[in-house]
Amino acid sequence: MSRHRAYLDYNATAPLHPDARAAMIAALDQPGNASSVHAEGRRARQLVSTARASVARLCGADPAHVVFVASATEAANHLLAPAYRMGRAPLRHSRLFVSAVEHPCVLAGGRFDPADTGILPVDAEGRIDLAAAEQALSAHAAREQGSFLLALQLANSETGVIQPVRAVADLVHRFGGTMIVDAVQAAGRIAIDAEALGADFLFLSAHKLGGPQGAGAVIARGEMLMPEPLLRGGGQEKGHRAGTENVAAIAGFGVAAEIAAADLARSSALAAKRDRIEAHMRSEAADITIYASGVERLPNTSCFALPGLKAETAQIAFDMEGIALSAGSACSSGKIGRSHVLEAMGADADLGALRLSIGMATGEAEIEAFTAAFAKLNARRRERIAGANAA
Amino acid sequence: MSRHRAYLDYNATAPLHPDARAAMIAALDQPGNASSVHAEGRRARQLVSTARASVARLCGADPAHVVFVASATEAANHLLAPAYRMGRAPLRHSRLFVSAVEHPCVLAGGRFDPADTGILPVDAEGRIDLAAAEQALSAHAAREQGSFLLALQLANSETGVIQPVRAVADLVHRFGGTMIVDAVQAAGRIAIDAEALGADFLFLSAHKLGGPQGAGAVIARGEMLMPEPLLRGGGQEKGHRAGTENVAAIAGFGVAAEIAAADLARSSALAAKRDRIEAHMRSEAADITIYASGVERLPNTSCFALPGLKAETAQIAFDMEGIALSAGSACSSGKIGRSHVLEAMGADADLGALRLSIGMATGEAEIEAFTAAFAKLNARRRERIAGANAA
Repeated sequence: MSRHRAYLDYNATAPLHPDARAAMIAALDQPGNASSVHAEGRRARQLVSTARASVARLCGADPAHVVFVASATEAANHLLAPAYRMGRAPLRHSRLFVSAVEHPCVLAGGRFDPADTGILPVDAEGRIDLAAAEQALSAHAAREQGSFLLALQLANSETGVIQPVRAVADLVHRFGGTMIVDAVQAAGRIAIDAEALGADFLFLSAHKLGGPQGAGAVIARGEMLMPEPLLRGGGQEKGHRAGTENVAAIAGFGVAAEIAAADLARSSALAAKRDRIEAHMRSEAADITIYASGVERLPNTSCFALPGLKAETAQIAFDMEGIALSAGSACSSGKIGRSHVLEAMGADADLGALRLSIGMATGEAEIEAFTAAFAKLNARRRERIAGANAA
Repeated sequence: MSRHRAYLDYNATAPLHPDARAAMIAALDQPGNASSVHAEGRRARQLVSTARASVARLCGADPAHVVFVASATEAANHLLAPAYRMGRAPLRHSRLFVSAVEHPCVLAGGRFDPADTGILPVDAEGRIDLAAAEQALSAHAAREQGSFLLALQLANSETGVIQPVRAVADLVHRFGGTMIVDAVQAAGRIAIDAEALGADFLFLSAHKLGGPQGAGAVIARGEMLMPEPLLRGGGQEKGHRAGTENVAAIAGFGVAAEIAAADLARSSALAAKRDRIEAHMRSEAADITIYASGVERLPNTSCFALPGLKAETAQIAFDMEGIALSAGSACSSGKIGRSHVLEAMGADADLGALRLSIGMATGEAEIEAFTAAFAKLNARRRERIAGANAA
């Protein structure tokens, strides 16, 4: 692979931050099961404990309320469950509501029967339709169907659009439900305050914010209301999640969370880079559609489509030019389907859209490589259109 | 921490093999989501694919039948489920049988209701009681209660005793059940041939065999009979297990599996080290009990008890002498309970037992450090006993 590649697919997986890498290697070089009583075990436990504080801090949460898991997908399957406990008393949720633009691991509904999952519509920008949500929750309450969960992303992985989480949380609480927030794409890119968001639960993934693949976190508002464990066995994570802790990945997650929190102060620089890229694209291609560009978005994401350009083909062309970006989500091995996000927005999903996503480490050389490749592909597109019109 | 510590707790977590470490770092240094279509994604996918072949080879299995998970605990929760599919047709297991000496993640019964889990007794050496197993399966079949699962470890984590897996598999198949083998402690220490064992499913953990924490594998005999996914979401692992693959951990797992397979030829050297340690202990303390030492055991494990010595206290004393070993399993944070394994064997579980577990990398200096510490602790024990007798 050439040294000159530009990796612009942070929303699929972000490069590991050098400091997180160093923390991981330090942990890997010392054997230790965090449940062992001996010195090696205690040191491993200390690494987990330090990371727990760092991840909690990133979300304004209490470290005691952080449960480490192996991925955001595991977090979603853990949280999206009919069976919860309030203290020691069982509590059953009869229904799960999710927005139509959630990540597949939320849309799949976790441990709920598909028949008990309701999909809430979004507007043309991909934001949840508040009136429709209120109507659905109100109808649920009117039928006295008992307690429910609602899961909503803080930011969308494809467009970066930011959801009105607080307004939805207020609705959910008004109708007696529990609010679960998928903060995977938002964490480290915008500030997160679990309390201000009104989230009863948040979940995060390390590898989207500069940590390694293999670590995620569930963050609860308190310790009373918790789902029945998904992974049963040893008593790790206070009995909420069994399995030997992945100490190195958790240590890397903690350091990445620390850095991400510090970097939030520089997020306007991130937005400036993205905006420069978009200004370039608009100047080259006046007919470009940049999704959700008129509303509040993540500072690092740009989702765009060009008439006459099939995203899947364009993605391969960019790849050959040394640019890694995505067409749709990277969720199933090598497969690209129609974007359920664009479809839910009522956008023309036939040609698909390209997603470019960057990070603090994205440099001038990478931006220039992208803009050059964009200009080249766009020129070819114009020629094809001109040829088609002449014919 | 002193440089002179001896880490003799491989069954809790084994040190990362240097070659597995190098493979992990190489993977960490290249961003890539194994589901992405671009070059970075394809390279990540290739690493996963190579590891899949290596892990399959360690068990004499087909790479197409390996599903990567994040831990053996996840593997157990994935496999121990009432709901399976045979091709596209649902298949429901009405009962789960497990031996009384299984790991907590198996004893917990996964997705089965505790009322549907039957515990099978073991003999004084900790091996499953074949007559009792036959009786239980026969009674289940006589009541025409439908299909069942039986989960049995190949080797016990505390004593290292090897179970008569093939004989149990033959029984299970005679009664129309499905055989699940927990090969976590056996893998890399004794040869594993899924076919010869009669296992319908095997599961492994990377970190017990020189790989990193955060990777495990489920290995199926075929592709037809599979449990309903535990983690739902993206279509990773052919839809059997959603979630972004932990590429670095999987790459490290693969390399560790390759090395473990090659090292099996030297397993007599491992047994010779362990036997030397045990000969020393016997010469120092004639009243020592070494569990399961008269039957087939893992070559790396020694589980022992000394009259008048509480394992929990002794473990701390060893730790202060720089020796890491365990008293019971390292499964719940810092907690030591009575050993369910010793209890099931009908052994005196009040004082507990110590477990020493080594690996190919265990050197002379570590063995000498242990034997010196053992001699010191044993001398103190003798003094206490002599004092008590004199009083």
